[in-house]
Amino acid sequence: MENFRFNAYTEILFGTGQIEHLSRSLEPYGKNVLLTYGGGSIKKNGIYDKVMELLKDFNVIELDKIEPNPRIESVRKGVKLCKENKIDVILAVGGGSTIDCSKVIAAGNYYEGDPWDIVVNPSLIGEVLPIVTVLTLAATGSEMNKNAVISNMETNEKLGTASTKMIPQTSILNPEYMFTLPAIQTAAGTADIMSHILENYFQKTKGAYVQDKISEGLLQTCIKYCPIAINEPTNYEARANLMWASSLALNGLCGCGKSGSWTCHPIEHELSAYYDITHGVGLAIVTPRWMRYILSDDTVDKFVEYALNVWHLPLSEDKFALANLAIDKTEEFFKSCGIPSTLTELGIDRSKFDLMAEKAVKFGGLQNAYVSLTPEDVKNILIDCL
Amino acid sequence: MENFRFNAYTEILFGTGQIEHLSRSLEPYGKNVLLTYGGGSIKKNGIYDKVMELLKDFNVIELDKIEPNPRIESVRKGVKLCKENKIDVILAVGGGSTIDCSKVIAAGNYYEGDPWDIVVNPSLIGEVLPIVTVLTLAATGSEMNKNAVISNMETNEKLGTASTKMIPQTSILNPEYMFTLPAIQTAAGTADIMSHILENYFQKTKGAYVQDKISEGLLQTCIKYCPIAINEPTNYEARANLMWASSLALNGLCGCGKSGSWTCHPIEHELSAYYDITHGVGLAIVTPRWMRYILSDDTVDKFVEYALNVWHLPLSEDKFALANLAIDKTEEFFKSCGIPSTLTELGIDRSKFDLMAEKAVKFGGLQNAYVSLTPEDVKNILIDCL
Repeated sequence: MENFRFNAYTEILFGTGQIEHLSRSLEPYGKNVLLTYGGGSIKKNGIYDKVMELLKDFNVIELDKIEPNPRIESVRKGVKLCKENKIDVILAVGGGSTIDCSKVIAAGNYYEGDPWDIVVNPSLIGEVLPIVTVLTLAATGSEMNKNAVISNMETNEKLGTASTKMIPQTSILNPEYMFTLPAIQTAAGTADIMSHILENYFQKTKGAYVQDKISEGLLQTCIKYCPIAINEPTNYEARANLMWASSLALNGLCGCGKSGSWTCHPIEHELSAYYDITHGVGLAIVTPRWMRYILSDDTVDKFVEYALNVWHLPLSEDKFALANLAIDKTEEFFKSCGIPSTLTELGIDRSKFDLMAEKAVKFGGLQNAYVSLTPEDVKNILIDCL
Repeated sequence: MENFRFNAYTEILFGTGQIEHLSRSLEPYGKNVLLTYGGGSIKKNGIYDKVMELLKDFNVIELDKIEPNPRIESVRKGVKLCKENKIDVILAVGGGSTIDCSKVIAAGNYYEGDPWDIVVNPSLIGEVLPIVTVLTLAATGSEMNKNAVISNMETNEKLGTASTKMIPQTSILNPEYMFTLPAIQTAAGTADIMSHILENYFQKTKGAYVQDKISEGLLQTCIKYCPIAINEPTNYEARANLMWASSLALNGLCGCGKSGSWTCHPIEHELSAYYDITHGVGLAIVTPRWMRYILSDDTVDKFVEYALNVWHLPLSEDKFALANLAIDKTEEFFKSCGIPSTLTELGIDRSKFDLMAEKAVKFGGLQNAYVSLTPEDVKNILIDCL
């Protein structure tokens, strides 16, 4: 286990009715609230009306239409609104896209230049406005961590930035808010959660046993409850376990004490940057291909652990057979949840693979991943995804 | 899963050399530091000298000799020192006893009456001085939670109190600080960690799957690494995993979304209150007897889960046989770690069992435990421990 700093300071208010604490959560910061949200699903399911009712004593400025892959243009708009209206606190109501966008707005409020600078270079982040979130989708874990991913479609860049100051102060997690979620979003969100865990599970660091056991537990949670949530959208237990798993998958618990670059996320970020596909869908397509590509004498023992402890496959003498079976299970699982299983289905061809592979290695630092990858390797993995 | 509030805001600095960040961790609060510690082991192993060197620019007042079951007299002494010296921050260097005592001192600093009041009645806790800890024993989880347990030997009371304001701001966890720990303390500390997990694992709430999976992972960590740490006291990996497990076992991760009173802790608190025994030793003796006592048609399925997922016992048709085997394993594990397995070995007889059983039920709220217990039940469990 390596040295680490862990600081997931977000206050989580979990469960039905917790929204009633909203105004109390905002009050310490001031009366001027920037309310951020996405395409308007919160207007259909009643969350918007409930929030506005609870905020009747606040001055609420709205930023809506934040994109599923949130764009720097939305950040710029948000920063402008913050500065013009002397915003005290940002209330993000939505999934990871809305929260990520809000984080960079919150940091951008105190940055004099163009906010794209602080996406490219997180060390430029200084003060950050406090952020409160109301989560409506279990996926990114953004509700309890320091990360934000922003896209710049002009330059075809989708980059991550981070600052402990961007960790939300309070996040309200009501599993009922996911009852109306389309099956594909439940599935893609779960694929995202699982990818966050797997990116940390498969790392070179040895002896981080606590982290691996928590990771295995959270993966089992996803595998158990995603199909239930798809078949019974209003199953509270399924939604609750997926929602809490999403926060814990990326608040540092699975990754602390380990090091190394992630692999599937940087590759997927290129897919989203060029084709604007759903992040979780991209991850579900790339992950099993990556697993198969890196399976070797060096990695097989970790895949055996994965097979036994996550998929509960019966112990076998043939380690590679067991590893491959676990990878099959992973692939079949995503498919069974209704996620497209090839890039071809999404209309993506190989025309930009060279460029994407180059950029994934460069921006993702893939030479420092669990298994070091060259642009050639990434291209091969992408071809396997067709 | 029930509604919950989760807020484990402590900044954890984990690993070798993290002590170098000590002064930076204290600085935001001020220059007047109350340094608290126990019997002086930190003077033998060099931690005291290191801390004093790092605090050369601070005004350090010391409170030493904090007891293994910290007493209200030490709290009173500490509060007096805080008030006399206008203390800004408390630095607790030690295990749970030192940290628990420091928490109540920190709260007592702002309380006008006798600090025993705020032990008996946590709602009287108002402001609390900031607390920074340097952990030297993996056991109580106090380094990352709101709880404190204080003994009053005059009244034979050992009671828990709690406030989110008493959560340490920063805790420095260096596994090397446990290299010099006697085997029995490693074992008793691990029994304490396991008990924290088991008290939450065995609860009536259904569907808290994430919490149960994390619990099973942390239990497996204890089972794997405690024997290694006993046999190889300087095994960093073993110490690191036990240390991190201790913090996560009682920071809310295992217990959030569940409800009900604990059982073994209230019973053990009576043993410590009357006989001043090591907390973890008492827990290791009581826990398997309690398990056997409450095993029934109502509880057997949970014990089967425990048998399969924690002890990896082979699936069997006979659920009760499997449950009993898991309880045997639990008992044998504590014994194999060198922990006394009967109260008789500790010189405890049945003379006070009636009184202790009454008090355990009353103060512990055992009617609301996983299996509701009467004083008669508790007495029977204690008799089984002889």
